[in-house]
Amino acid sequence: MRVDLTAALDRVVDCSLAKMAVNGERLKLWIAYDGRPFRGWQSQASGDAVQDHVVRAFATICGARVVVHGSGRTDAGVHALGQVAHADVPPTRLTPKTWPGALNANLPREIRVLRAQLAPIGFHAQHSARGKTYVYRIRNTPILHPLELGRVWLVPGCLDFSAIEAAARLLTGTHDFAGFAANRGYPSGDTVRTIREIRVTRRNSLVTVRYEGTGFLYKMVRLLTGTLIRCGKGDLPLAGILGRLVQKGATKTSFAAPAEGLYLLRVLY
Amino acid sequence: MRVDLTAALDRVVDCSLAKMAVNGERLKLWIAYDGRPFRGWQSQASGDAVQDHVVRAFATICGARVVVHGSGRTDAGVHALGQVAHADVPPTRLTPKTWPGALNANLPREIRVLRAQLAPIGFHAQHSARGKTYVYRIRNTPILHPLELGRVWLVPGCLDFSAIEAAARLLTGTHDFAGFAANRGYPSGDTVRTIREIRVTRRNSLVTVRYEGTGFLYKMVRLLTGTLIRCGKGDLPLAGILGRLVQKGATKTSFAAPAEGLYLLRVLY
Repeated sequence: MRVDLTAALDRVVDCSLAKMAVNGERLKLWIAYDGRPFRGWQSQASGDAVQDHVVRAFATICGARVVVHGSGRTDAGVHALGQVAHADVPPTRLTPKTWPGALNANLPREIRVLRAQLAPIGFHAQHSARGKTYVYRIRNTPILHPLELGRVWLVPGCLDFSAIEAAARLLTGTHDFAGFAANRGYPSGDTVRTIREIRVTRRNSLVTVRYEGTGFLYKMVRLLTGTLIRCGKGDLPLAGILGRLVQKGATKTSFAAPAEGLYLLRVLY
Repeated sequence: MRVDLTAALDRVVDCSLAKMAVNGERLKLWIAYDGRPFRGWQSQASGDAVQDHVVRAFATICGARVVVHGSGRTDAGVHALGQVAHADVPPTRLTPKTWPGALNANLPREIRVLRAQLAPIGFHAQHSARGKTYVYRIRNTPILHPLELGRVWLVPGCLDFSAIEAAARLLTGTHDFAGFAANRGYPSGDTVRTIREIRVTRRNSLVTVRYEGTGFLYKMVRLLTGTLIRCGKGDLPLAGILGRLVQKGATKTSFAAPAEGLYLLRVLY
């Protein structure tokens, strides 16, 4: 009986979404992009951020300004495999199935809408997010392969993996990450975050660090990765990480790993 | 005893190579490049081919013109994971171990010398080659992922894999490939080639075609791949392939697969 009830509820929700569509609808979009040609996700006065391109694509299709909300910023050069955004669109003949094609026809090829779905009016790409998964890719070879240019961080030389893994274990959990943020938690000032998992894997010379957490501060993943690699190089003892986890002062961002190795993999709702 | 004899011979060869180095030496280079920024391998009047960049890097290091021979041309947009070249260089303090770093410091980042080795004076990158391996990558999805731009051929829609595999079997072996060449075997006019293997593999939506053969005519791999995909789409019956294998007339190159999915994997000596 419970299952039937759920199915019935699903139908009610579907109906109300269908009704909503008469007066326009809220779309949830999954977007992938190569970070290199753009100045990050967030709209820029120069108009060359990913969000700017998506807004212009909607304007061309709808003939009206459509506000697009992303799940959060990504820096210039950072890639996305699964950025999520929402937008309230006026009534059109387009369906969730045909929206991606319409948007992609009006977007640079380095940005692709992979999927669209109707979302309830309460859904918000940023505020409804329960967490995010990032992946950072490091190539531990002397020479950077041309086909990996802009897609990995080249770290030549010896790396102590047991040190990297020990550092990753220290950083996992709920901490005040003020020492790993470039903006001291602006705008809220809250710098406590929970990292559910930091998984370091190695396949031949490719080192992958996967972060899953409730949310990440500005440049936090790159600062964490830079820290892990400094541990792996023997330039930072584990005690240095503990020190950084309790410090509240300004963060030196000089040890942030470069943007090009970072990928926003998934937004969790 | 035989093993010792071989080892002794190896030492003699090593010694003569070492002596040769006094009056300069022949270097064998393994080179990788992203094909997109360059007008192919072969030197161009405009100076923006891969070979031009390598020649300029040698000139900067040696202060003299060094002739660089590649194993063969690759078209504009075609990538190389293992292009091979040789060059006779004047005496320097560089060793096979330090040559890659010296050359890479003078090359665009989209070209990397992966390895260098002393080669006997009889070695010729093109004439000593016994064969080549190419890989062609096809993405069989409706949407091209931004991070695969310029690296695969996007072929949406249904593909009949049994037809592709049957076509690959027909094309394998020794044939007159005049019907699959853009230049009728120029300069020799000989259009007979042996393809030892065409291996079609599929992993999720990625279709990979690996060609190994004694040599390939101009645009041959792209024309073969275009043909395979036409078979897979049901646009060309297997009988059409047989017809093309016996025809000697001009080849329509309109069905050549695009350059961006093609990779020169290895040159066999």
